[in-house]
Amino acid sequence: MGAGAVYPLFLRMSGSWKEQSVADRQEFIKYFQQIVRDLTEDGLQHPEVGDAIARLKEVLEYNAPGGKYNRGIAVVSSLRELMGPEAQKVENFQRALAVGWCIELLQAFFLVADDIMDYSEIRRGHPCWYKKEGVGLDAVNDSFLLEASIYRLLKKYCRGQPYYLSLLELFLQTSYQTELGQALDLITARPEKVELSRFTEQRYKVIVKYKTAFYSFYLPVAAAMYMAGIDSDKDHENARTILLEMGEFFQIQDDFLDCFGDPSVMGKIGSDIQDNKCSWLVVQALKLVSPEQRQILEENYGQHDPARVAKIKQLYEELGLPAVYQRYEDESYQRLQSLITRHANSLSKDIFVSLAQKIYKRQK
Amino acid sequence: MGAGAVYPLFLRMSGSWKEQSVADRQEFIKYFQQIVRDLTEDGLQHPEVGDAIARLKEVLEYNAPGGKYNRGIAVVSSLRELMGPEAQKVENFQRALAVGWCIELLQAFFLVADDIMDYSEIRRGHPCWYKKEGVGLDAVNDSFLLEASIYRLLKKYCRGQPYYLSLLELFLQTSYQTELGQALDLITARPEKVELSRFTEQRYKVIVKYKTAFYSFYLPVAAAMYMAGIDSDKDHENARTILLEMGEFFQIQDDFLDCFGDPSVMGKIGSDIQDNKCSWLVVQALKLVSPEQRQILEENYGQHDPARVAKIKQLYEELGLPAVYQRYEDESYQRLQSLITRHANSLSKDIFVSLAQKIYKRQK
Repeated sequence: MGAGAVYPLFLRMSGSWKEQSVADRQEFIKYFQQIVRDLTEDGLQHPEVGDAIARLKEVLEYNAPGGKYNRGIAVVSSLRELMGPEAQKVENFQRALAVGWCIELLQAFFLVADDIMDYSEIRRGHPCWYKKEGVGLDAVNDSFLLEASIYRLLKKYCRGQPYYLSLLELFLQTSYQTELGQALDLITARPEKVELSRFTEQRYKVIVKYKTAFYSFYLPVAAAMYMAGIDSDKDHENARTILLEMGEFFQIQDDFLDCFGDPSVMGKIGSDIQDNKCSWLVVQALKLVSPEQRQILEENYGQHDPARVAKIKQLYEELGLPAVYQRYEDESYQRLQSLITRHANSLSKDIFVSLAQKIYKRQK
Repeated sequence: MGAGAVYPLFLRMSGSWKEQSVADRQEFIKYFQQIVRDLTEDGLQHPEVGDAIARLKEVLEYNAPGGKYNRGIAVVSSLRELMGPEAQKVENFQRALAVGWCIELLQAFFLVADDIMDYSEIRRGHPCWYKKEGVGLDAVNDSFLLEASIYRLLKKYCRGQPYYLSLLELFLQTSYQTELGQALDLITARPEKVELSRFTEQRYKVIVKYKTAFYSFYLPVAAAMYMAGIDSDKDHENARTILLEMGEFFQIQDDFLDCFGDPSVMGKIGSDIQDNKCSWLVVQALKLVSPEQRQILEENYGQHDPARVAKIKQLYEELGLPAVYQRYEDESYQRLQSLITRHANSLSKDIFVSLAQKIYKRQK
C-alpha cells in the first residue's frame, strides 16, 4: 500500500466513535484539575510539609500537561471496549481517568529526568523544568515526586479493587523496563563520542521496545485489561505482542518525522542528527552506504554545524530513505493487521484498531 | 544523666545477644552477593538487555555496600524479636535479609541522587558515583535502577506472602515521605544563598523526620512487623512514635559529630558549616546569640574559607553548644524510655532497646 492510500482498518472508525474519542479527550484534560487536588489539597495546609506540597503542585502543573495525552486516554477508551457500559459508571470512569493520568505522570517523571541527562533545552515548547530559574538539579527530586504521585493516586482510586496489586506490579515493572531502555540508550549513544558502529538495527529495536513501547503502548492497554478483570498471562502476552509492534512503528515514525516532518505541523524542529541520536534513519543509512558515503556520515553526524546537518540530510535523500520508510510503514501495517487477527482472540480488536488509527499516517 | 554515665537500658544487652548481633552483621554483609545474583544473573546473558544489566551490576556493587548496614540489619533483628524461633527458619531468615537489603538499596537510591543535587564529592570514602569518569548525570537513571531493584527483590522473595502488599505500600509511602523531606531541605537551605532566618527549630525537626527518620528508623521495624503479621494501625502508630523520636536524636547527634566528632574515629571530616547546612548546631546557636554574635554567624556561615569556619566553631563553643547537646542527649534518652514504656505495648521492647543501643553514645 503506497503513501496516501486509505487503511481499511480505519474505515471502521464510525462517526460516533470519533465523537466519543473527542469527548474522552476533553474529559481527560479537564480531569487534571481533580488529579492536582487529589495530590495536594490535604497537604497544602499541612503544618509540616505544606511547602513541599506547594512545590509538588508547581512540578505537576508545569510537567504533567502539554503532551498529546494519547497514552492516558488509551486507558479510558480501552476500558470502555473491554468492559462495555459498566465502564461508564461514574466510579469506573473516574478510575480510568486517574489511571490514565498515572501514565502521563510516569511519562512526566521520565521526561524531567531524561532532559537533565540529555542536556535538553526545550520540552513541549517551554524550557525544560531543570532549565527554569532556581530549579537546576533539584529537578531530580522533583522527578521522584512525580513518580511517587502515581502510587498515591493508585492507592486513592484503586485500593480495595481486586486488580490493585496487579496495577502496582504493572507500573513498577514497566518503570524498570523503561529504565533499562534508558540505560541501553545512554550506553549506545554517548553525546561526547560519535561511534556509528554501535548503531545496529538490533540494538535500535531493543532500545525502542524497552524505552518507549512498554510504557507507551502495552502499559495503558494492560492497565485497562486488569481493571476489566482480564489477567491471564496468555491474554497479556497476546496484547503485548501486538502493542510492542505498534510501539516500534511509532518510534520509527517519530524518528522519520524528526528529519522529514513539517516543523510547522510538528510544532518543533528535529535535532536527532546534531544530537548523535541512534535514530532509525542513521541505522538504515548505515545498512545502505558505500564506503565513501560512510565517510560522509562519520565526518558530519553528531555535530551542531548546520552545513554538516544538511550534508547528512542530503545523504539520506540520496539513499532513498523516504521510500525505505514508506515501505516500512506499509509492511508494519500489514504485520500489525495479521498480529491482530492472530492474537487479539477474546480481546476486542477495536482497542488495537483505535490505537493504530492514532499513529499510522500521523504527521506530528 | 551526664556524659559517660551508663544507660541502664544497655545493661540488658547480654553476651549472647551481642554475639547474635555480630553474627547478624556477618550474615547480612555476606548476603549481598546473593542479592546481586538475584538481580542480575538472569539478565547478564539476556540477548536484549544484557548490557543494561551489566550496568546495574556495576551500580549495585559501587553504591549499595559501604555503609553501616544498621538499617538493613534492623529488619533481621526486629523480625527475630517479633517472631521468635520461626524467624530462624531458612526462608524467613533469607526474606529478612532480602528486605533488609531493600532498605539499603532505598538508601543507595537516595544517596546517589542527593550527591548529584548537593554537588558532593565524596561518599563513604570514595568519589560519589556521578563523579566517576564517564558516569556524570547518567547517574540519575542509575539511581532509578537502584529503586526498581527494591520491587524486584520484594517480588522475588515475598510475593504470595500475606504481607506482600503491605510491604509494597510501606516502601512506596516511605519513599514519598523521604522525597518530601528532601524537597523541604532543598527549599530551606539553598547553597547559593545564606539566609539564616529559614533555620528554625520547627523546620529542622520536620526535615529530619521526613528526610531521615521514616526510612532509617520506622521503615526497618515496620517491615519486620508486617512480616510477623503485626499490621494494626495502632501498633504501627505506637512503633512510629518511638522510632521517630530515635530518628530525630540520631540526626541531631550526626550534626553534632559533624562539628565536634573525632575525624579519625568518624573516617570523614565534617563540612556542614561550609555547606550552609540547616544543622542542629546552627539552629541552637540562632536561639542563643546576641545581636553581635548573630552578626558573626551571618558573616561567616556557609563559606569555604577555613578561617571563617573556625570562627563559627569558636562561637559554638562560646555559646556552650557541647553542653546543650549533652543535655539534649540525656533528655532525649529519658523521653525515649518513657515512650517505650508507654507505647511498646504488645511489641517486644527489646527491638527498640537494641536500636537505641546502637545510637546513643556512638562516636561515629
